[in-house]
Amino acid sequence: MSTSTDSYALPGPPDIARSLRRERRTGVVPGLHHRPAAPADPVKAAEIDRRLETWARGLDLFPEAWKGDFSGFQFGRAVALQHPGALDLDRLTVAGKLLPAENVVDSCYCEEDEGRGGARRGLGARLIMAQSAIDPYHGVPELEEEWRAGMRADGPLRSYHFALADYAGFATSSQTDRFVHDIARLHMGYLAEAAWAETRYVPQVWEYLVMRQFNNFRPCLSIVDAVDGYELPEQIYARPEIQRVTALACNATTIVNDLYSFTKELAGDPDHLNLPQVVAANDRRGLKAAYLKSVEIHNRIMAAFEEESALLSAGSPLVERYVQGLAAWVSGNHEWHATNTHRYHLPDYW
Amino acid sequence: MSTSTDSYALPGPPDIARSLRRERRTGVVPGLHHRPAAPADPVKAAEIDRRLETWARGLDLFPEAWKGDFSGFQFGRAVALQHPGALDLDRLTVAGKLLPAENVVDSCYCEEDEGRGGARRGLGARLIMAQSAIDPYHGVPELEEEWRAGMRADGPLRSYHFALADYAGFATSSQTDRFVHDIARLHMGYLAEAAWAETRYVPQVWEYLVMRQFNNFRPCLSIVDAVDGYELPEQIYARPEIQRVTALACNATTIVNDLYSFTKELAGDPDHLNLPQVVAANDRRGLKAAYLKSVEIHNRIMAAFEEESALLSAGSPLVERYVQGLAAWVSGNHEWHATNTHRYHLPDYW
Repeated sequence: MSTSTDSYALPGPPDIARSLRRERRTGVVPGLHHRPAAPADPVKAAEIDRRLETWARGLDLFPEAWKGDFSGFQFGRAVALQHPGALDLDRLTVAGKLLPAENVVDSCYCEEDEGRGGARRGLGARLIMAQSAIDPYHGVPELEEEWRAGMRADGPLRSYHFALADYAGFATSSQTDRFVHDIARLHMGYLAEAAWAETRYVPQVWEYLVMRQFNNFRPCLSIVDAVDGYELPEQIYARPEIQRVTALACNATTIVNDLYSFTKELAGDPDHLNLPQVVAANDRRGLKAAYLKSVEIHNRIMAAFEEESALLSAGSPLVERYVQGLAAWVSGNHEWHATNTHRYHLPDYW
Repeated sequence: MSTSTDSYALPGPPDIARSLRRERRTGVVPGLHHRPAAPADPVKAAEIDRRLETWARGLDLFPEAWKGDFSGFQFGRAVALQHPGALDLDRLTVAGKLLPAENVVDSCYCEEDEGRGGARRGLGARLIMAQSAIDPYHGVPELEEEWRAGMRADGPLRSYHFALADYAGFATSSQTDRFVHDIARLHMGYLAEAAWAETRYVPQVWEYLVMRQFNNFRPCLSIVDAVDGYELPEQIYARPEIQRVTALACNATTIVNDLYSFTKELAGDPDHLNLPQVVAANDRRGLKAAYLKSVEIHNRIMAAFEEESALLSAGSPLVERYVQGLAAWVSGNHEWHATNTHRYHLPDYW
């Protein structure tokens, strides 16, 4: 076991202060419990990026303004880190296609402050079409044809539609449906976040975390079995205890995003909700104290994931493989955030 | 086979005109293809209503202003008509609980013109909490406790939460997850409809029908196997062809609602979107012609459901049982709409 601090026990404030000083230069959020990721093969990552750019260019997926971000995002490196057990490069490439698809929808439909067309007003109408791109309309032939034409109307819709078609090429119908459900969750999360921004509502911490369980990396994690070339059968996946460890892993890794995005998000929009901001608003303490408390919340959710998934694994090699896949994704995602200095940098509290 | 017209062949305009005159007094939309429902036992319906009212009173589910509608809605009769093959009264009662739960969320969170607190503004925030009531938050114990308290905060949340808990008492985890996904679809549909209302966007017909595939009776239909006491295994349910016939049945029966609600909705809000209105706006013809064209769209979707589900049934008794359950729901729902004159009456074109 390895974490960014010396021990797995949750560090108290003095430990955090020490680890802050020690880790300042490493790019890792001080005190954040994480596990080392399997290194990503740079040749493999570059090959995935090459395939993704060819795919994106062929389908004209991205607006001009977004193209500069493509290499900065490091999609290939991201999926290579997140799916160390991927069956082959083809599956890894499809996992890679889902990432820019999710990002371009968020960027072009949702985010007002990115200047790429995103807006809160009318968002529900744009997102129903995005959902429809992966959850097809059924009716009479001429209306279905109009739907198909509509789904080719812009890059975000084409991204979702064609990325999912490729995913469904190797995933089972159940795994595909799982993804469709998780994107529905994601869209509801986007819509809740937009509603709060519109009404300038500052949620309680639990309310924020409920929203963040929806506006979440879950669609990326729940594909781990398909990318690794097997299926956690749906009747196991659907069990409440498997749903719970899935949600815990997804919530932990999503809070990691809040912690690493904190500086970037505040620079773009001082009212952008993220966990440290929400904790600060509720506790009426400074942002640094709130940031440290947010790290602690993350660490406790990670601990719950690790403890509960170990218990579930004891009885089932298949469940063990699945939760190891989740854990690998969490580790790889942490590594990507901690090293992707193109996008992220830590607050300069320390 | 029996339909409201003499033959199953889609009636042309003169046939419709004849059937209009003939059926005007029956309460059935003229020319609408439908099948007779198994009659509902009034004693059973009354017993379900009695149980539902006890349940609703015990949990204080409904706002004062809504209580008058309880008997008018005829929940007990609705589920008795829709689930003629229900295993027992307990399952039928739980199907009954889901109906007012869905209605109270729609009425109190979404519908601005009903005067019960519904509003477009902030809707995404309310619906994420509603979704969370059936898709629980996972984190650290004290935040989960705050979530649990939050889910008891109002009647709509309690309705969803406790109705789903009862459903999960007999449904498998897969069947429960299916319902949770379908409610996510429903919420996205509500949000798209609200976005269009806010921006005063008049959709094309295919766009409207995409939205209506989400804002749809689907959560009521996809429980037919659980209520009847068996499971269509998820790996069959998830197959594209089963998803397709499910969507066709759900879309047909949802358009039935548009046709029967037409007069009521226009009286409440002249801009309320429904299929005849959207067809009229796009075709620039009168509402009567648009209404007749909407009936035709419905009939063709019903025909597609019946043809395709017959083909799928040929190979599998389990699929046959499932699609018969869908068809029974569609018939029962039609009967309920056609006879529930407390809520619905036809436009006086004929």
